[in-house]
Amino acid sequence: MTRFALTLEFDGTPFQGLQRQAHGPSVQQAVEEAAHAVTGEQVTLHSAGRTDTGVHALAMRSHFDVETGLPPFRMMEALNAHLRPAPIAVTHCEIVPDDWHARFSCIGRRYIYRIANRRSPLTLELNRAWQVPQELDHEAMHRAAQALVGSHDFTTFRSAHCQAQSPVKTLDRLDVERNGEHVLIHAAARSFLHHQVRSMVGCLALVGMGRWREEQVGEALEARERQALGLNAPPHGLYFVEAVYP
Amino acid sequence: MTRFALTLEFDGTPFQGLQRQAHGPSVQQAVEEAAHAVTGEQVTLHSAGRTDTGVHALAMRSHFDVETGLPPFRMMEALNAHLRPAPIAVTHCEIVPDDWHARFSCIGRRYIYRIANRRSPLTLELNRAWQVPQELDHEAMHRAAQALVGSHDFTTFRSAHCQAQSPVKTLDRLDVERNGEHVLIHAAARSFLHHQVRSMVGCLALVGMGRWREEQVGEALEARERQALGLNAPPHGLYFVEAVYP
Repeated sequence: MTRFALTLEFDGTPFQGLQRQAHGPSVQQAVEEAAHAVTGEQVTLHSAGRTDTGVHALAMRSHFDVETGLPPFRMMEALNAHLRPAPIAVTHCEIVPDDWHARFSCIGRRYIYRIANRRSPLTLELNRAWQVPQELDHEAMHRAAQALVGSHDFTTFRSAHCQAQSPVKTLDRLDVERNGEHVLIHAAARSFLHHQVRSMVGCLALVGMGRWREEQVGEALEARERQALGLNAPPHGLYFVEAVYP
Repeated sequence: MTRFALTLEFDGTPFQGLQRQAHGPSVQQAVEEAAHAVTGEQVTLHSAGRTDTGVHALAMRSHFDVETGLPPFRMMEALNAHLRPAPIAVTHCEIVPDDWHARFSCIGRRYIYRIANRRSPLTLELNRAWQVPQELDHEAMHRAAQALVGSHDFTTFRSAHCQAQSPVKTLDRLDVERNGEHVLIHAAARSFLHHQVRSMVGCLALVGMGRWREEQVGEALEARERQALGLNAPPHGLYFVEAVYP
């Protein structure tokens, strides 16, 4: 048996998320079918994160096991050939030890959320960023974000469909910066709850618009209830950018 | 009569170029129809450049004349509302004097060409860059490019369909730089021949791949014949980025 670790880049727009779904295309299904076409084997893909419909990845990490022993470079080329025309690319492929697991060995996840802070509709960035027309105070957003950093009960920022056993997570970083018309939010943690990044970004955007006081973000956290959530940011601004391993 | 000057951003993918065509959608037609919907008038759009099918713009400059006297901000908002869902946005709108002309007053044009220099297929950047799998020597490309800067007969780098009266143009700048996996080519001139930027980029890419010696770019220029052209780069890496006015 050979365990192949992949780095995946994908445009989440046409998929019902990363995980295989009963209805609709998924990144997992596309990669498993490509791996089946290459090896003739039934393949199960395991990934560091589960992204929703419309969420993108610059460097998702995944793995699968096969009996077929191909050099990693040839596996990557063959998978990419079979993935066309789906907007999924294997950007790196390597053989890893049998005890390396894309999900369970992962000790850190990093996301970037992109806001296009502009009045006019998006063209080249359609489905690649969240367009917010009101001018955002990114410095106020950054200050407000710091109330969320650390170990907290993130129930407020958790989807009703979240399957995690505990709502307590440790957020290592939540930084907001401006780059021209773009406001970028950087989030890092060992792991996140379902919808956590989008929920945090939604509330920070309310602060940026002046509709929430900076302190309200911390107050929403302390409320520990979904009702306290101000806004869930749309999926198409979210990018999974890094999975960290020991 | 009021002359409105627009700054346009568009994704060129679904259009047969900027200029109105007998067959197929164009940016000009879309903007003229939006302006007609806003004002009820027959409107003709004039633009600083003519871009081909698949070529993008970050800041094309255009103008039209109407009898309707709307504040520029309201004109911009109304045009954007009527342009949906076409991937064209008016990012700026102002009223200009009657002797200001988007094309004839323009004294400089600037383009950027984006190469994604990577092995794996494009996903999020599909139709937004030219994917070149061979590793490009961007420094050799930059050196070779300098042979094209200045006033020359650019017949080699001119489309057979070019309507310019003279093949002599003055290229002010042709710089090649690398930003991670991207190779960016910056081109500036008062005006360009049809296909000139794409033709220059194609030959520079051959240098970057090691298929052409650096000197061959200058030799192709001196040949003054289209047969000497090595390669015409595809349109989807090209962006019109600036029109300069006195």
